[in-house]
Amino acid sequence: MTTSARPEGARLAAAERPSRVVVEGVSPDVDQGRFPAKRTVGEKAVVEADVYAEGHDAVTAVLRWRPESAPEWTEVPMEPLGNDRWRAAFTPSALEPHRYTVEGWVDAFRTWRAGLAKKVAAQQVEAVDLLVGAELVEAAAGRAQAAQAARLRAAAAALRGGEPIAVRVGTALDEEVALLMARHADRSGAGRLGRELVLDVERERARYGAWYELFPRSAAAEPGRHGTLRDVAARLPYVAGMGFDVIYLPPLHPIGCSHRKGRNNASVAEPGDVGSPWAIGGPEGGHTALHPELGTMDDLRWLVARARELGLELALDLAFQCSPDHPWVKEHPEWFRRRPDGSVQYAENPPKKYQDIYPLDFETPRWRELWQALLGVVAFWAAEGVRIFRVDNPHTKPFRFWEWLIAEARRAHPDLVFLAEAFTRPKVMHQLGKVGFSQSYTYFTWRNTKWELTEYLRELTKTGVKDFFRPSFWPNTPDILPEPLQWGGRAMFQSRLVLAATLSASYGIYGPAYEQMEARAREAGAEEYLDSEKYEVRHWDLEADSLRDFIGRVNRIRRENPALHANDSLAFHRIENEQLIAYSKSTDDRSDQLLVVVNLDPHHVQSGWLELPLEPLGIAPGEPYQVHDLLGGGRYFWHGVRNYVEIDPRAAPAQIFRIRRRLRTERDFDYFL
Amino acid sequence: MTTSARPEGARLAAAERPSRVVVEGVSPDVDQGRFPAKRTVGEKAVVEADVYAEGHDAVTAVLRWRPESAPEWTEVPMEPLGNDRWRAAFTPSALEPHRYTVEGWVDAFRTWRAGLAKKVAAQQVEAVDLLVGAELVEAAAGRAQAAQAARLRAAAAALRGGEPIAVRVGTALDEEVALLMARHADRSGAGRLGRELVLDVERERARYGAWYELFPRSAAAEPGRHGTLRDVAARLPYVAGMGFDVIYLPPLHPIGCSHRKGRNNASVAEPGDVGSPWAIGGPEGGHTALHPELGTMDDLRWLVARARELGLELALDLAFQCSPDHPWVKEHPEWFRRRPDGSVQYAENPPKKYQDIYPLDFETPRWRELWQALLGVVAFWAAEGVRIFRVDNPHTKPFRFWEWLIAEARRAHPDLVFLAEAFTRPKVMHQLGKVGFSQSYTYFTWRNTKWELTEYLRELTKTGVKDFFRPSFWPNTPDILPEPLQWGGRAMFQSRLVLAATLSASYGIYGPAYEQMEARAREAGAEEYLDSEKYEVRHWDLEADSLRDFIGRVNRIRRENPALHANDSLAFHRIENEQLIAYSKSTDDRSDQLLVVVNLDPHHVQSGWLELPLEPLGIAPGEPYQVHDLLGGGRYFWHGVRNYVEIDPRAAPAQIFRIRRRLRTERDFDYFL
Repeated sequence: MTTSARPEGARLAAAERPSRVVVEGVSPDVDQGRFPAKRTVGEKAVVEADVYAEGHDAVTAVLRWRPESAPEWTEVPMEPLGNDRWRAAFTPSALEPHRYTVEGWVDAFRTWRAGLAKKVAAQQVEAVDLLVGAELVEAAAGRAQAAQAARLRAAAAALRGGEPIAVRVGTALDEEVALLMARHADRSGAGRLGRELVLDVERERARYGAWYELFPRSAAAEPGRHGTLRDVAARLPYVAGMGFDVIYLPPLHPIGCSHRKGRNNASVAEPGDVGSPWAIGGPEGGHTALHPELGTMDDLRWLVARARELGLELALDLAFQCSPDHPWVKEHPEWFRRRPDGSVQYAENPPKKYQDIYPLDFETPRWRELWQALLGVVAFWAAEGVRIFRVDNPHTKPFRFWEWLIAEARRAHPDLVFLAEAFTRPKVMHQLGKVGFSQSYTYFTWRNTKWELTEYLRELTKTGVKDFFRPSFWPNTPDILPEPLQWGGRAMFQSRLVLAATLSASYGIYGPAYEQMEARAREAGAEEYLDSEKYEVRHWDLEADSLRDFIGRVNRIRRENPALHANDSLAFHRIENEQLIAYSKSTDDRSDQLLVVVNLDPHHVQSGWLELPLEPLGIAPGEPYQVHDLLGGGRYFWHGVRNYVEIDPRAAPAQIFRIRRRLRTERDFDYFL
Repeated sequence: MTTSARPEGARLAAAERPSRVVVEGVSPDVDQGRFPAKRTVGEKAVVEADVYAEGHDAVTAVLRWRPESAPEWTEVPMEPLGNDRWRAAFTPSALEPHRYTVEGWVDAFRTWRAGLAKKVAAQQVEAVDLLVGAELVEAAAGRAQAAQAARLRAAAAALRGGEPIAVRVGTALDEEVALLMARHADRSGAGRLGRELVLDVERERARYGAWYELFPRSAAAEPGRHGTLRDVAARLPYVAGMGFDVIYLPPLHPIGCSHRKGRNNASVAEPGDVGSPWAIGGPEGGHTALHPELGTMDDLRWLVARARELGLELALDLAFQCSPDHPWVKEHPEWFRRRPDGSVQYAENPPKKYQDIYPLDFETPRWRELWQALLGVVAFWAAEGVRIFRVDNPHTKPFRFWEWLIAEARRAHPDLVFLAEAFTRPKVMHQLGKVGFSQSYTYFTWRNTKWELTEYLRELTKTGVKDFFRPSFWPNTPDILPEPLQWGGRAMFQSRLVLAATLSASYGIYGPAYEQMEARAREAGAEEYLDSEKYEVRHWDLEADSLRDFIGRVNRIRRENPALHANDSLAFHRIENEQLIAYSKSTDDRSDQLLVVVNLDPHHVQSGWLELPLEPLGIAPGEPYQVHDLLGGGRYFWHGVRNYVEIDPRAAPAQIFRIRRRLRTERDFDYFL
């Protein structure tokens, strides 16, 4: 057996006696400290750990935490949960990484005191028992200061002193002495986790927010004109009126002409075709330039400011790829992969070819310069006041690149938020969360049935995934018109929106396609939109039939109910109908408790008996309670665990109930009725 | 964001481009490498890991392993299991720690080759595609030697050469070229786990064995005499005849007189009372001395040798505590805790006092000397040929002490086996496994119902626990006469034995109390034996009614069926009767497949329909098979998934079926019938 086989234990360290206390199984802990866990400012971090020693001596455990910039640790006593598991919590208040760790020690005084109490009960106390305690108290006095030291010395003297044993036992079991002894415990043999864990603390928008995506070039008020950033500014009240928090714009940069795609992704563009905004770069510039038809940097600054006035925040797109006309292709040919014939390697996924896109070569020998230039892109837009980035296809760039880029960017601007647009394999999506993305697109887009939704949300909210992967639920995107939206009509658009907006604290839609219920696919079986805005300018008549008011109501419910600002409390409830899904969310203090019931069937009335466990809601058995449908306005008195629910999708396919308790007095009844 | 927040990724290392490949989630891995995983010589270690890169390039993963003493790594290609999970295995053949780790890299040639194959199918291949491949092959030639380099250079030339594209494609997709390219892959950008994991390799007895415990002083052939080691030697054929592998003896040392306990744990001994063997130490010596009435060191040596001749191995007890008369109390007073009145602190668990026992103070300032002395005890008996130790109450001594002691002892004698006699909280029991105990007593002793057994075995065999905690199932011990044995009669003794012997590869009984079905408790509600051998000499009439033959049959079945030598394959099967429990075990190659059905009700015939999934057994739907009850001798033809089972506990409360397949020919039928 060599030293390294059991790195800590097999050989004994030169100096100190090893600790008796084991600290392990700490949560949150992402890959044993390799990555930070995520929280937002003001969001409680509940920390648990296994802390124990051999035998039956009393153990004390503390959580230690500090903001990275603070020199001093704060200590919080941990509560024993049974089975050697302990828990405490802290709430980060600063926008910076926080560190935390756990420490535990065998508490000789508490052990002695508990034994003495048993001996008292058995009338077995001997003078020598009290002398053992006196020695412990004297030792603590040596670790204490001034008044507390004096108080402890007095207690030790009393334990030794000439009073009858019964009196001295009183000192031994005195609560104040116990408190002082806890404060000055002998921690020389403490066990420690052996590493500090990091909490990545972001601002609230990393966790909670409603996003609205639109194509600026389609934002002109009148048909036939290429929209501009000024047009987007004019559209802001419409977006803010629906209650969104973030307006996200696809790339604003010059669009390449070489191999430009035509309408509906035709491989050859017709004259006048505008191309895809993701084919970035032309003679006018690349990732730090604006498409001339969209406007100027001044227009952008005005848009950023105008959005802020309306309570909206602008999110831009980071798509780290180039059109063949991007200035970098000439200025930095070494950032691209060359084929043996000297041509630049375009993107391909054989047999498909994307000749309008040159991928950047993240493995080029000049990778440092390239990576630095890409960080420069982020810095450029951040300097213009942009603080949110939706990142295009991050799963095709190295993880370590993102880990570095996000850390560096947030060192300069800790309030940056990055959304990963990755629709790929589960472990790749998770790794992007681990390396620093604030939130990520998810599989929600394709999770439709009750079983699919329940299983997926369990993974997202009830496993370790919740500590590093924050979901953003999108019922549609410019790339994805999910099949159910193609046939499900208004009720399907409504139910998918309610699911996204209430299951996930962050969600978004691509509009006006969504609120106008655009349902036409390019061809049968495809998820691509017909006449997609990715390849052409569209005009949207905002006065047409729309879900605008419905969406506004849902977003208002989100804003007014903090239960919807996080996902941890999510609980699904039994309802005997596969077409009805029911779940609740609540705040820690139960002051806000919502129950959502959604009819997944867009065509038929569905009903069932809902089972709502009352104890977690703090409702006593037999206590009546009211449920108030914030969406439809209905109010119902419910009793007990099982209550009847019926949803007609033609009215609205969902009910969002606020659960109102405390129906104890006449006045309460008056108030609620 | 500081460097340390994301230790590996946030800041870039000075020299190398970071790898694109993530290696994580390796199993087995006990606490991220803090502790080794356990295997025995010849036992396969299946290693799995998540290995992946961003994007869709082909990734190759290998398992690397070596015995600690070997300088060179062996590499095994890992198989992809889907979802970015990979698997490979190695089988340690040497009795020493083995190291293993996982490495993966993006395989440019495989990526290129797969893309080319798709282009071939789409009739899209261009000359430049082949030149890309030629560059990769030339680079590999530079990494290869002699003939292989020449072969690769020839392939590169063929890819570049003047032949028609169709011919050059043949070279590109050539299997031999693919093999050579795999052998000389560019691993410069490989991702590595970043640490080496350790496999603690023990001998087979650490995993598999049947133990028999007896009190030497009760081993005299005739009543009224204090038994000796020579008497134990005379008892060996009896024990070997029942098919046991290990004979374990409680402490053989001098027993203290001070505060000696009397019969049935009386607090005061009567004259002539022999005391508890665990009150170790008297004027004749301590942990390296033999009790004079048991015999001499020569007798012990003879016993060790005689046992070996009979295929038995001797296990001794390590009880690291002292009677007040132990020589160390005088020679090393600093190894004991003193009370303020100068007296030595005896063991206590208020209000209980154990004045016959002085615990050693593992935290004494002289702890190094004490620990070394205890290692000396192990070394002393190991020098006498003892290789198995049953450790008394390890959960009252520091974990780090055991970690150090076991590692040091096994450095001298890698074939040492340590059994932890810990009946305590789950995490403490687990930690003892982690720090090095080969196996451990378990909660089996109190798991009686089908639900209890199923849940407990799931934890032991289907979770990470199996990698560090090897169970030893004991239906009784000198300390525990479980309540069901007090009322369940012969059938209960039989069923508990079959459960222990077939659910766990290691098990043991305390005899002759077990085979003679000793069922008298000291008092109602107690688990202590009446007239316990812990405090007095007992005489057992070996000719009395006994389970001797039954136990012999069960142990023979164990020896003859390798399926019972491990626990990993354990699977429980549905049977519609809570009193019937059914499970199977099989070898990796399915050459040995056993099905065990136990009637947990000792009083009534129980029957039910058993559901046996056929696919894991390799039985085709519709294929008849035979089950042969190795215990009762019955043979049955079964068909399909559901078959009827009926067990009369008066005959035997269990059936141990060998499942016999391949009933394909007349000859097979003859053979089986």
